[in-house]
Amino acid sequence: MAEKIKEECNKLLLPVSDALDILSGKWKLPIIFALFLGNHRFRELQREVKGISGKMLSKELKDLEINQLVKRTVFDTSPVTVEYSLTEYGRTLEKLITELHNWGQQHRNIIFR
Amino acid sequence: MAEKIKEECNKLLLPVSDALDILSGKWKLPIIFALFLGNHRFRELQREVKGISGKMLSKELKDLEINQLVKRTVFDTSPVTVEYSLTEYGRTLEKLITELHNWGQQHRNIIFR
Repeated sequence: MAEKIKEECNKLLLPVSDALDILSGKWKLPIIFALFLGNHRFRELQREVKGISGKMLSKELKDLEINQLVKRTVFDTSPVTVEYSLTEYGRTLEKLITELHNWGQQHRNIIFR
Repeated sequence: MAEKIKEECNKLLLPVSDALDILSGKWKLPIIFALFLGNHRFRELQREVKGISGKMLSKELKDLEINQLVKRTVFDTSPVTVEYSLTEYGRTLEKLITELHNWGQQHRNIIFR
């Protein structure tokens, strides 16, 4: 395959694997799904994302914050309360997740025919 | 979150993680990308997918065959030649990969601003 095409291919590949990296892994999707349904406190999220440890939830939320998909808001209550929500940018995942869902559903229908 | 919504959520989650599983990992995408550009013999694929071992390429191609995304054709030449190609169904990945690319490109622009 001409060197030029290979280069183009690799350039195309990078953003695709970036997007996959953001969503892959056992916990990212359940967390993002829960936040699509509304803002959550830490304990609420931990209850909803079955089986996740506090340490892992903190790490995954940190990743999502760094990637500007999740916002952490601290409320000046007593005691202080912390809430997690999807950012406006985080909501742009909806179209991609819908496309993944549609393809995945089609795949399940084909494979489990 | 009402139990009913949680159930619905989990039902939505499964096809999404299925789609991610099919594309995730270091080698699936480079193999699929190469096959989008045309049919390939084993050695050709191994040359193009930099760093992949013969054993790993066989395993990944087997996975893709089981998932009906790739077809293996044996030609009655002497010696026998074997060619790999995307199935019609495998080509339905194009829309999903394009969506992943668009989101990933947007993400790179935002993160590396």
